Amino acid sequence: MYQLNSILENKVINNLISGFERSPYQLNKPHESDAEIIQLNDNTKFAITTDSISEEISTGLYDDPYLTGWMIVTVNISDLAAVGASPLGILISEIIPKDFTNAKVTDLQRGISDACKAYNTFVLGGDTNEGDRLILTGTAIGIINKEKPLTRIGCKPGDILFSSGKLGSGNAFAISKFVSKTNSFTEYRPVAQIKNCSVISKYASCRVDTSDGFISTVDQLVRLNNVGFKLGSDWLNAIDNDALNYVKNLSIPAWLLLAGQHGEFELIFTIPKDLKAEFLDDALNNGFEPIELGKVISEKEVKINIYGNLIPINTTLIRNLPTEASGDVKHYLKLLLEYDYQLKNEPCLNFTSH
Amino acid sequence: MYQLNSILENKVINNLISGFERSPYQLNKPHESDAEIIQLNDNTKFAITTDSISEEISTGLYDDPYLTGWMIVTVNISDLAAVGASPLGILISEIIPKDFTNAKVTDLQRGISDACKAYNTFVLGGDTNEGDRLILTGTAIGIINKEKPLTRIGCKPGDILFSSGKLGSGNAFAISKFVSKTNSFTEYRPVAQIKNCSVISKYASCRVDTSDGFISTVDQLVRLNNVGFKLGSDWLNAIDNDALNYVKNLSIPAWLLLAGQHGEFELIFTIPKDLKAEFLDDALNNGFEPIELGKVISEKEVKINIYGNLIPINTTLIRNLPTEASGDVKHYLKLLLEYDYQLKNEPCLNFTSH
Repeated sequence: MYQLNSILENKVINNLISGFERSPYQLNKPHESDAEIIQLNDNTKFAITTDSISEEISTGLYDDPYLTGWMIVTVNISDLAAVGASPLGILISEIIPKDFTNAKVTDLQRGISDACKAYNTFVLGGDTNEGDRLILTGTAIGIINKEKPLTRIGCKPGDILFSSGKLGSGNAFAISKFVSKTNSFTEYRPVAQIKNCSVISKYASCRVDTSDGFISTVDQLVRLNNVGFKLGSDWLNAIDNDALNYVKNLSIPAWLLLAGQHGEFELIFTIPKDLKAEFLDDALNNGFEPIELGKVISEKEVKINIYGNLIPINTTLIRNLPTEASGDVKHYLKLLLEYDYQLKNEPCLNFTSH
Repeated sequence: MYQLNSILENKVINNLISGFERSPYQLNKPHESDAEIIQLNDNTKFAITTDSISEEISTGLYDDPYLTGWMIVTVNISDLAAVGASPLGILISEIIPKDFTNAKVTDLQRGISDACKAYNTFVLGGDTNEGDRLILTGTAIGIINKEKPLTRIGCKPGDILFSSGKLGSGNAFAISKFVSKTNSFTEYRPVAQIKNCSVISKYASCRVDTSDGFISTVDQLVRLNNVGFKLGSDWLNAIDNDALNYVKNLSIPAWLLLAGQHGEFELIFTIPKDLKAEFLDDALNNGFEPIELGKVISEKEVKINIYGNLIPINTTLIRNLPTEASGDVKHYLKLLLEYDYQLKNEPCLNFTSH
């Protein structure tokens, strides 16, 4: 069974919120939406979301202050893009270590400022504390003018699965940081898809961002919508070229660029089949070229064509690996490669209980 | 000169935000308001504020998970109360250490839940990460229906200075945690003044909460309004009885309950003299008994009657002591007691350059 609670992260969240009452004005249930959606009055809804950057810093994934600043804005604005909210701004709480140099602070704040400019939004306020290491928490707020906000719920078998852009740069960047520091992948500065979210909103049946990587993203859609996904046989075309060349050189299989949990902050969305042509026309007229990834199927599986077979991926196992590895990134990558080895050499053993 | 930048904390904030553009919809400037105030449309403003609890945990001040949960809601809702916003809810990002027991997590979440119930508000969402130690960041949002929101700006000489309640419990609690663990002060569970903020809003010229203790609070008002404050000779009546008895037993002077920077989350506000009677009537009808503290004066000083003299307190020195003590709480208390010794024994040396 694809239950939400089979994913340890979902279970932790459900435990934490089990004693909380829900606001009568909140339109989404837990897990259903990238941002919280609150009905303000008849005409206005707002979307609000909070995300911290902590483990990415403590593990060494983000060691560049400019990128870290850019990311705290991007991860939060991306959640607003997923629900189709126009950003009003962001608040940022910064825990800054004593030994953080002035130059690093300047770079951090420049990353924040540049990202805000890129999304035409503003830092509205914040908080500052001193701590052992850098930790940032952002909270972004936006307004939804559409009658029915777009959430993670709503895709149906037959719908077409799209991505707003190429996938895999987040995981190539992570591999470069943790596995092969000599051969670095530096092309990582994801852009929250605020620009393209309006045209998607007109047609899509559900939408989510790839903050946790593609497979985790669609696995959550499986659990929420009781459907599955089958990627087209040409799924490699959806992989970022630089990321693809990068892992080829390291002899790491390309599909792991979809499996790792460091995302690229593209939007994953589904379009009802009969709206596809109209959507693609409209998108093109807006200078936006979405990538068709596959389709929604009724079996609750995520199927990808690898090693010559259409394989149902054990997305439960993949999503729970970070917890199993207790935050040890190298151990996590080893477990991921072990699963790949099994798919390649013992596909009949592929453990698919969810 | 009482400049904002003479306070090291203000200077740090001003440096951090120096490269940021302000939102054209934001009604307050930096430092002017406890919460950020954003014009949404002709009829609606919202207030949003973010506050982390980090140093309070790392120093051992908050070692009770229930209190910590209560506080992350209270500190943020208190900022909404200061600007007169009705809370819509709060988002909480939690960094939870691996060794935090289930029982502690339950207590933490119960504190959050109880505080939300007390303020008739809701946890709207959040984020969870694993880290070395517990760090909470809350972001509260509320709606302001009043035409002109109440900020820290607006008091004039002659206005009467009030507090929504007794002062000093926050600092008595801190002394109990850091100085005298055997003789504990346990009566600390501050309540954000949401209930009383409407009646104050009708009359007040400015308002702020005492999150950083009374003296820091009024010092910031001095810098923002170019006025001063003179406490009435009966200021001891405004001190919480339990806190007063507690410090008496430790031979710590009572005025230090106003000087320490762990607040009690009361509202400090000023009422124009000619509105005082009407305000007090209205308050009483609402079951609210504000405490008259003193008055606004034109000299930019904070004057308190201690050791037989009306002494202008060196609030700049007091506010910068935590930075001077580099976060060493015992050293901070020592510096505070040294300043008290000087006031008591060498009042003519009282250093009042700001």
